[in-house]
Amino acid sequence: MADSVITLSDVAAAAGVSLSTASKALNGTDRISEATREHVRVTADRLGFRHNALARSFARGRSQTIGVLTHRASNPFTRVVLATAATELGAKEQAILLYDARMGDRDVTESILQLRARRIDGVIVIGTSTSFRTPSLTGRFDVPVINAFTVSEDPQDTTITADDFAIGRLAITHLLSSGRRRIAHITAEPHDMAAQRRAEGAAEILADAGLEWAAPVRFGRWREEWGEQAAAELLAQVPDVDAIFCGSDAIGRGIERVVRSTGRQVPGDIALIGVDNWESLMHDQRGTRHLTTIDVGLEEIGRRVANQLLEADLEPGTQYVEPHVVIADTA
Amino acid sequence: MADSVITLSDVAAAAGVSLSTASKALNGTDRISEATREHVRVTADRLGFRHNALARSFARGRSQTIGVLTHRASNPFTRVVLATAATELGAKEQAILLYDARMGDRDVTESILQLRARRIDGVIVIGTSTSFRTPSLTGRFDVPVINAFTVSEDPQDTTITADDFAIGRLAITHLLSSGRRRIAHITAEPHDMAAQRRAEGAAEILADAGLEWAAPVRFGRWREEWGEQAAAELLAQVPDVDAIFCGSDAIGRGIERVVRSTGRQVPGDIALIGVDNWESLMHDQRGTRHLTTIDVGLEEIGRRVANQLLEADLEPGTQYVEPHVVIADTA
Repeated sequence: MADSVITLSDVAAAAGVSLSTASKALNGTDRISEATREHVRVTADRLGFRHNALARSFARGRSQTIGVLTHRASNPFTRVVLATAATELGAKEQAILLYDARMGDRDVTESILQLRARRIDGVIVIGTSTSFRTPSLTGRFDVPVINAFTVSEDPQDTTITADDFAIGRLAITHLLSSGRRRIAHITAEPHDMAAQRRAEGAAEILADAGLEWAAPVRFGRWREEWGEQAAAELLAQVPDVDAIFCGSDAIGRGIERVVRSTGRQVPGDIALIGVDNWESLMHDQRGTRHLTTIDVGLEEIGRRVANQLLEADLEPGTQYVEPHVVIADTA
Repeated sequence: MADSVITLSDVAAAAGVSLSTASKALNGTDRISEATREHVRVTADRLGFRHNALARSFARGRSQTIGVLTHRASNPFTRVVLATAATELGAKEQAILLYDARMGDRDVTESILQLRARRIDGVIVIGTSTSFRTPSLTGRFDVPVINAFTVSEDPQDTTITADDFAIGRLAITHLLSSGRRRIAHITAEPHDMAAQRRAEGAAEILADAGLEWAAPVRFGRWREEWGEQAAAELLAQVPDVDAIFCGSDAIGRGIERVVRSTGRQVPGDIALIGVDNWESLMHDQRGTRHLTTIDVGLEEIGRRVANQLLEADLEPGTQYVEPHVVIADTA
């Protein structure tokens, strides 16, 4: 059985002072000698005394709890941001209260009432992508709100998110650095903002190098089977392509299977680079590496939203985290 | 700007009753007429009044907060359990306070003091695997403790976890059902309990069918590159193998690449089944499917630990969640 909770009375008794003196010593609310204060503090530490944080936060009208709204907590990207933010907040004694799929008007109104009743100190809104704009929730709360991995309809909302333009630039920069010149791009839906911005960033770096795409960009789906289909078409039309920027690692896995099935070597004949660092989502730190990829910075987003929310003032506007290349076998 | 918090005084004024009557009506603590109670309730609902949950939980000595200890919150499996449990708890107005990597003796002692100070109502301990036993923490808390996705050193600890034996049985049952008879197994370290139990469950089903492994089980690493290496050796020694049970999806991806590189068809010549449902960890519900796999039930574990912890009494001992086959292209 665990031992019982140490109370302020226990500390006072062990230190040989009155309850009132013990309270003053630990709360710093009145004049007592520094020697007495130190004696009580040392005694409290020795006994393992902790203030009742619940009572203290009640007195302050704060809960040390952050509300978290997610579009879909089962989304793999959301989980990374959520787990990282929760870890960062926990290290600072901040709890989270998670409301999943409460982004609709009616649900948000209900959530706001419940969160107010808990006297939460702030709100983190976690999206699932940078593929589309999401309604702003900032004005609906009377505590600070910060957005993570999303694109808010209100550009003044404090938002920390992935930089798709930089992702596209980085992918092509990496392929050019290994001497590739006939580069193609296979990616997701043409109306998807993340796919668009990655393609734009990539095209800018190509243009800077005096190059063009080796074939028109193939827009399709965020799917492994789309990678297979598009790669088969591409290789039939442009057999001498020497690199493919894959819009995601899933698309890249499908592309790789088709490229190899034609007898081509990867990366010898065709280099492949994806986006998402899928393998790190699966493999933990003992991770194997196979597909060269761009990590969009989800963990960094989680850390930064947690830390900025605990700061005094949030800066309005969007902050982008820097993507980075994860080099493996394919490029 | 958001509107201000509705207080009990606002409700009393709007309902035309005294503050005391409003309080009695909403707290059910004294005799007032049912008509008055109903009138006050309707008024409170109309205004969007919510009790101050922080004050109520303080009065009850409860925090509506669950402590969560993780070995490593950045582990992909941990993230699934964590996100699912947090979602389930949030739906019931329970916050979580996450302490990552606080499993060591010294850190646990400190965490216990901090969690007590928050008056947490219970603890969830989330592991990273069923590969090894972990020290029991149950006796160190004076609130209910439940373990998720781990193997506790104390079999009496309430633990909800994956069933590796059933995973092995299910994989072979699926391969046999499609007529495979010359089945091999490539998996992780021989001392890894999850790898061992999966191999044992698989061997039992083979024996029931009057069969043996087509080649000795190859133990190695949880890595894609180990899948490649082991598959190359296997195919050189036993070229007529017609199915491979892959210890994980990562191993399976490496195996598939080598099998296809020899000109064999998947699943025509060789069927492949993995474990982990890696693609669901990456793809969300719009998921593509490529590798046939066993889902070990991480989301079910997350849901169940949350719900059982909120129940009155925890049953001692280990509960296993049922794995299920996710059929895709390779078996």
